[in-house]
Amino acid sequence: METERAKAKYDRLNKDEAALLIIDHQSGLFQLVHDHSPVDLEQNVCALADIAKLFKLPTVATTSKEDGPNGPLMPVLRERLPNPKIVRREGEINAWDNAEFVKAVKKTNRKQLIVAGITTDVCVAFVTLSALEAGYKVYVVTDASGSLCIGSTAGALARMVHAGACPMSWFAVASELMRDWREDEPGFKKLMVDHVPNYKHLIDSYKANKED
Amino acid sequence: METERAKAKYDRLNKDEAALLIIDHQSGLFQLVHDHSPVDLEQNVCALADIAKLFKLPTVATTSKEDGPNGPLMPVLRERLPNPKIVRREGEINAWDNAEFVKAVKKTNRKQLIVAGITTDVCVAFVTLSALEAGYKVYVVTDASGSLCIGSTAGALARMVHAGACPMSWFAVASELMRDWREDEPGFKKLMVDHVPNYKHLIDSYKANKED
Amino acid sequence: METERAKAKYDRLNKDEAALLIIDHQSGLFQLVHDHSPVDLEQNVCALADIAKLFKLPTVATTSKEDGPNGPLMPVLRERLPNPKIVRREGEINAWDNAEFVKAVKKTNRKQLIVAGITTDVCVAFVTLSALEAGYKVYVVTDASGSLCIGSTAGALARMVHAGACPMSWFAVASELMRDWREDEPGFKKLMVDHVPNYKHLIDSYKANKED
Amino acid sequence: METERAKAKYDRLNKDEAALLIIDHQSGLFQLVHDHSPVDLEQNVCALADIAKLFKLPTVATTSKEDGPNGPLMPVLRERLPNPKIVRREGEINAWDNAEFVKAVKKTNRKQLIVAGITTDVCVAFVTLSALEAGYKVYVVTDASGSLCIGSTAGALARMVHAGACPMSWFAVASELMRDWREDEPGFKKLMVDHVPNYKHLIDSYKANKED
Amino acid sequence: METERAKAKYDRLNKDEAALLIIDHQSGLFQLVHDHSPVDLEQNVCALADIAKLFKLPTVATTSKEDGPNGPLMPVLRERLPNPKIVRREGEINAWDNAEFVKAVKKTNRKQLIVAGITTDVCVAFVTLSALEAGYKVYVVTDASGSLCIGSTAGALARMVHAGACPMSWFAVASELMRDWREDEPGFKKLMVDHVPNYKHLIDSYKANKED
Amino acid sequence: METERAKAKYDRLNKDEAALLIIDHQSGLFQLVHDHSPVDLEQNVCALADIAKLFKLPTVATTSKEDGPNGPLMPVLRERLPNPKIVRREGEINAWDNAEFVKAVKKTNRKQLIVAGITTDVCVAFVTLSALEAGYKVYVVTDASGSLCIGSTAGALARMVHAGACPMSWFAVASELMRDWREDEPGFKKLMVDHVPNYKHLIDSYKANKED
Amino acid sequence: METERAKAKYDRLNKDEAALLIIDHQSGLFQLVHDHSPVDLEQNVCALADIAKLFKLPTVATTSKEDGPNGPLMPVLRERLPNPKIVRREGEINAWDNAEFVKAVKKTNRKQLIVAGITTDVCVAFVTLSALEAGYKVYVVTDASGSLCIGSTAGALARMVHAGACPMSWFAVASELMRDWREDEPGFKKLMVDHVPNYKHLIDSYKANKED
Amino acid sequence: METERAKAKYDRLNKDEAALLIIDHQSGLFQLVHDHSPVDLEQNVCALADIAKLFKLPTVATTSKEDGPNGPLMPVLRERLPNPKIVRREGEINAWDNAEFVKAVKKTNRKQLIVAGITTDVCVAFVTLSALEAGYKVYVVTDASGSLCIGSTAGALARMVHAGACPMSWFAVASELMRDWREDEPGFKKLMVDHVPNYKHLIDSYKANKED
Repeated sequence: METERAKAKYDRLNKDEAALLIIDHQSGLFQLVHDHSPVDLEQNVCALADIAKLFKLPTVATTSKEDGPNGPLMPVLRERLPNPKIVRREGEINAWDNAEFVKAVKKTNRKQLIVAGITTDVCVAFVTLSALEAGYKVYVVTDASGSLCIGSTAGALARMVHAGACPMSWFAVASELMRDWREDEPGFKKLMVDHVPNYKHLIDSYKANKED
Repeated sequence: METERAKAKYDRLNKDEAALLIIDHQSGLFQLVHDHSPVDLEQNVCALADIAKLFKLPTVATTSKEDGPNGPLMPVLRERLPNPKIVRREGEINAWDNAEFVKAVKKTNRKQLIVAGITTDVCVAFVTLSALEAGYKVYVVTDASGSLCIGSTAGALARMVHAGACPMSWFAVASELMRDWREDEPGFKKLMVDHVPNYKHLIDSYKANKED
Repeated sequence: METERAKAKYDRLNKDEAALLIIDHQSGLFQLVHDHSPVDLEQNVCALADIAKLFKLPTVATTSKEDGPNGPLMPVLRERLPNPKIVRREGEINAWDNAEFVKAVKKTNRKQLIVAGITTDVCVAFVTLSALEAGYKVYVVTDASGSLCIGSTAGALARMVHAGACPMSWFAVASELMRDWREDEPGFKKLMVDHVPNYKHLIDSYKANKED
Repeated sequence: METERAKAKYDRLNKDEAALLIIDHQSGLFQLVHDHSPVDLEQNVCALADIAKLFKLPTVATTSKEDGPNGPLMPVLRERLPNPKIVRREGEINAWDNAEFVKAVKKTNRKQLIVAGITTDVCVAFVTLSALEAGYKVYVVTDASGSLCIGSTAGALARMVHAGACPMSWFAVASELMRDWREDEPGFKKLMVDHVPNYKHLIDSYKANKED
Repeated sequence: METERAKAKYDRLNKDEAALLIIDHQSGLFQLVHDHSPVDLEQNVCALADIAKLFKLPTVATTSKEDGPNGPLMPVLRERLPNPKIVRREGEINAWDNAEFVKAVKKTNRKQLIVAGITTDVCVAFVTLSALEAGYKVYVVTDASGSLCIGSTAGALARMVHAGACPMSWFAVASELMRDWREDEPGFKKLMVDHVPNYKHLIDSYKANKED
Repeated sequence: METERAKAKYDRLNKDEAALLIIDHQSGLFQLVHDHSPVDLEQNVCALADIAKLFKLPTVATTSKEDGPNGPLMPVLRERLPNPKIVRREGEINAWDNAEFVKAVKKTNRKQLIVAGITTDVCVAFVTLSALEAGYKVYVVTDASGSLCIGSTAGALARMVHAGACPMSWFAVASELMRDWREDEPGFKKLMVDHVPNYKHLIDSYKANKED
Repeated sequence: METERAKAKYDRLNKDEAALLIIDHQSGLFQLVHDHSPVDLEQNVCALADIAKLFKLPTVATTSKEDGPNGPLMPVLRERLPNPKIVRREGEINAWDNAEFVKAVKKTNRKQLIVAGITTDVCVAFVTLSALEAGYKVYVVTDASGSLCIGSTAGALARMVHAGACPMSWFAVASELMRDWREDEPGFKKLMVDHVPNYKHLIDSYKANKED
Repeated sequence: METERAKAKYDRLNKDEAALLIIDHQSGLFQLVHDHSPVDLEQNVCALADIAKLFKLPTVATTSKEDGPNGPLMPVLRERLPNPKIVRREGEINAWDNAEFVKAVKKTNRKQLIVAGITTDVCVAFVTLSALEAGYKVYVVTDASGSLCIGSTAGALARMVHAGACPMSWFAVASELMRDWREDEPGFKKLMVDHVPNYKHLIDSYKANKED
């Protein structure tokens, strides 16, 4: 126990080591989510896609039976993700069971996987647990993922954290990747302005004062 | 009591009789709101502005001491509202105490006032109670307004409803003004797609099925 | 005020005076509801349909643009409602604006209207306010109706109650219509068993004890 | 409207004018309640029974089909209520439909009825609305009543308040009946000590300080 | 109904017509409050006392049996209230039953009574209903009052609003009394800075920008 | 710590290695559950029983003193479970203390135990901790289990997860067992249609579009 | 990680190895608790004291500066605990820093410590962490403990669980100690009847059925 | 697992080993916090600053781009902190990436770091994880920190606790540092009086009783 509290390695996200996995954010499955307000979930998913674009993260998106009720990849992702690899699964619930998906992940040549999807307790948890087993570091973006109810989310998080996954908000992902505002201040501010309304208003008040 | 339950007149919103009043949606005051998530409030305020545009509602916006900490009119309103009359109050807390504001409202020549603002219990409630006293019908857009906490909102609503105001969501405002999809189906759908993510996904699934 | 507290007429539901109006319970619109858990809403809608069947209430159902994303009438209603009149609206948001609907309501020859639908603040509220204006008694089944968020529901209820509508649960509707268990004890018990799990378990425990 | 705000008569509870109606607090029906914690509901029902005893309120209790799953009158009521009239209904859901019950109420010769029961939206609401129609003043003890969910309670309260009923907590009932501590200080304090743990602790701290 | 929605008189608070009634904010009774966090309630009570000072409102404070467990008037009130009349009740639960209290209220020569206290459903509600009956306008400061649980508060508010009382937050009280920032801008800002932390921070950011 | 984050073995559920343990889902004990709505809990328990049927999981059900107030096994389980072994305990609270139960579990010859029951903090937690100690993998179905209040559930989950149990929703259990839709698409869809109303509606909308 | 999921030792409570530690349940400190309703906390503390009596657990109670505002040991504990050792601390916040307390604990000669108190994040957490360090097994009764707000409780539990403590409800403590109803069925039932109202009602319904 | 439950070292805070890190409590960033009420957060931050003063903790405060919208260090901190080292970061999001900050931390010569800031999931979590990696003990003051929403906070805490951080309330920090009231009773009481209103009222009641 003593050693557990000391010198825990901090595997922080690094834009050159990280890839983004988008798991089953589909227009039908979106309707199943009841642990976030729909407006919040949509906003958070958009933010995550904008992060991928800003940091040029290699991205693998996957969908489950998108010709049926599950529906196509969410439109905001289709519009924002820059040339993602899209793996259309015909049946595997755990995307890691799909060889093409695993191959696509490997091809990114990254060891840090940022994972989000629908639902948190199924598609996200299964990929996360498989990826951890395969030796990847996994960062679960909890606010850009959703499940049928809050209880399911809490249990799934406990399961994933116990296995070694890091739960993060999209805001923490962006900040950990950016590290320093001077790296790309306009880029980071734009993320905030587009997805954190209070921050947009802080800037607007600030500008107004400066203009006086 | 018996008569109270019978034959209540339904004063429904009518695009030719209604005007929109935007009360103190300012970048500083926005920070005071804690009865909605910021993302939800921003979304709802945008939706209301888009309604004004879609139905060409005469709009009177007003701000309170915008050169100071209260800040300028919210940027999303500045961008979306088509040539609103803006009344900059230097001190009156109740906009109805400002002659220019009342004159601007009168000039719209409308008897139905759609009111939203920050905060619900102060700026919105005061204008609402004054306008009711002056003989207007008042429709308070509760989800595009905000206050310091949920308790304040509940009390303010009880006060306004008791005095004869109608509480409505922006979605109800849009629907009551539109009346019939055939009036402007693309316009109504765009409102929904832009501000109700689930509805956007319904359409997206629908289109995907049709395209197959 | 003194008189207001005294001798309020109690217009209670009566199975020979009541009709049921089902407003836009459609498979697409169901996805918009976020003020109930989906499991609860489904259960409550089923219960209401079973009430209609049990009491042989004349029923008018209506849908809005069901060929599009709004989707068809909920399957559980199609299966349970005994030959309802179905009015398919091509555009009117307020069903009361549709002459065929109003005609169908009149044809029921009932003055008490039990109303439920999606969403509470739009389709339900508009029909309710129109029906009250037309002189009907209106009973809104709040737990078999749903809206985008809890705030919208609260405002819509305040608006409808102020205009004279009675908010009720499906359980209250069933009880007020039944009046006396001896009228149809198996029928009433079946409603409870099918839709109130605790009550089912009370009966099950009771039977087990009796069998010993 | 102006007059509505002025000079509202305050019909306050009076121990010589009030009677208590206990509606279907039965061991089976208790299990249906999910808008209070069971511990809170039990505590509040006990408090109300102790009030009846303290003020010697004539009490009419009624049960619905108590030989079946609904179960017998709650044990804490059987123990505490001083010789209540108990009306065992064989079928009427609204106790006011039972002639013996109405007769028992009339026999109390009181015009103020304090009502509590299970469930708030059915047995309590129906008796309340009937009693108001019959010209009684009705005081609904909301925290000693319960329903299947919070939404049902909120709707039922709006319905009853609109018809002229007064919602009260048991603590308000006790206080309005007592009027003055000097009337019976030990009696009032005992109520508080037995049912409001914080108050018991205030007294305990007070005594400890005085004893030093 | 039609007239009810039109021309409701707006009895707004006026610093020359209003008095403040402080009902049983005592150090012991404070412990009973569980519908606010203690930190919030303390803050709101302080704000209300500061309002009295700022507007020089005649103030009548009353306590109930303060030598016993109920405890003395809250220290923050003793420090802030400028020479209030304090009526120490030896037994009356409803302060309006105490002749000295009513006399003190009359002596203020004001017709608008701002009322706050502990608990909302007992001491506040009783005074409010009595004062309404006596022809006063009553404004209940809900966030500077508290009760044993949220359910009790909701019922008490419904009862008081039905009888004609206005529920308000302290922030609304301050704003309605002040009417115009130019009346006393430093005074109004100080209220906000001392009791609305976000507003303090808005000012701090604003000043910092101006100083640059 | 470094190693803890890496290469965690993912012991995923496997239909040939898993058995289901149903612990004290009895009609009396069901009434004790207050951390789920009764409708949700009933739905989730049914879903879990249907999973057992679909995957032909060997099932051991157990009850505690079912001749008394605890009541018989829930009727929905009696109807759905295909010939489960039922162990009727006369006294042991922890089913693992009952030799017949342990023998029945061993006889399934499975090493993965899916556990659900009432209550989460007692009967479920005790069996889980005993089974973990005996070397089994344990998967606790949190949404098909219930306890007296949310606080008890949270503590029990922390205890079980710390000891190595996996918390899962029934939906995750079904998905992890199924692995691939192509395995049995009608079976998996039926589970969803019967127990996830939103999913049923997705399918219904989909079919309607296809039929056009 | 692999081993962590396997064969976790289950240190279950044993009536011959367990002692109860009651930490600062004082009439003043009770007022600080805002993460439980006061009625629930009082009930749970009583239940825990009754457990100590039923199982004749050696009990060490301690208080902090009970002559001052913290107040005396809660009256329900003084009445129920059978001759507990009471250690009155004059200053040490962590009771483990008081030699007399540690000595009293050692003197119980038990290695399993059941701990409850006020507040969870201070007095309970400190004793728990000290006792774990000293090699005891510690079982924290979360529902018989309380803190200033829910956030503080959550953090304190995470800290204690991470260090190896077991969070339990009083119901789980009673059940784990009892192990088998046949050990003392009347004793166990009495605990339930006295502290779990639903269970009392189950029994009451059961008896009523049997008596018929 | 067996050893994990035994003999966990309790690294308790020690006033001679601890330093305080204040991370980005800035007037602009304060507006982003929506997992606490603003009044609570302000109160908790003040309490933490008063702790630093009372215990003369070496304090390192840091700000992020304070000339822009993030704003200056919160005024209550500027006023209360006794000569803190302030490190103004021009760009690094993780303060630990700023050499001057790390140097300042080292210069305190303390191994226990008490950390609070805005936001919990970004600035606080990053510093915490870096400091743990560097071998420090880290104590995160959760109630004096804040984030955009409750979900982000929960995930961040899980991440930090998994890595070995201790979550604590400011009240626990004060108590663990003080250890014994006799060390500085006036100091400890003042902390409570100034920041825990209930405690202030306990003292006030106590004094009043003693004065009688």
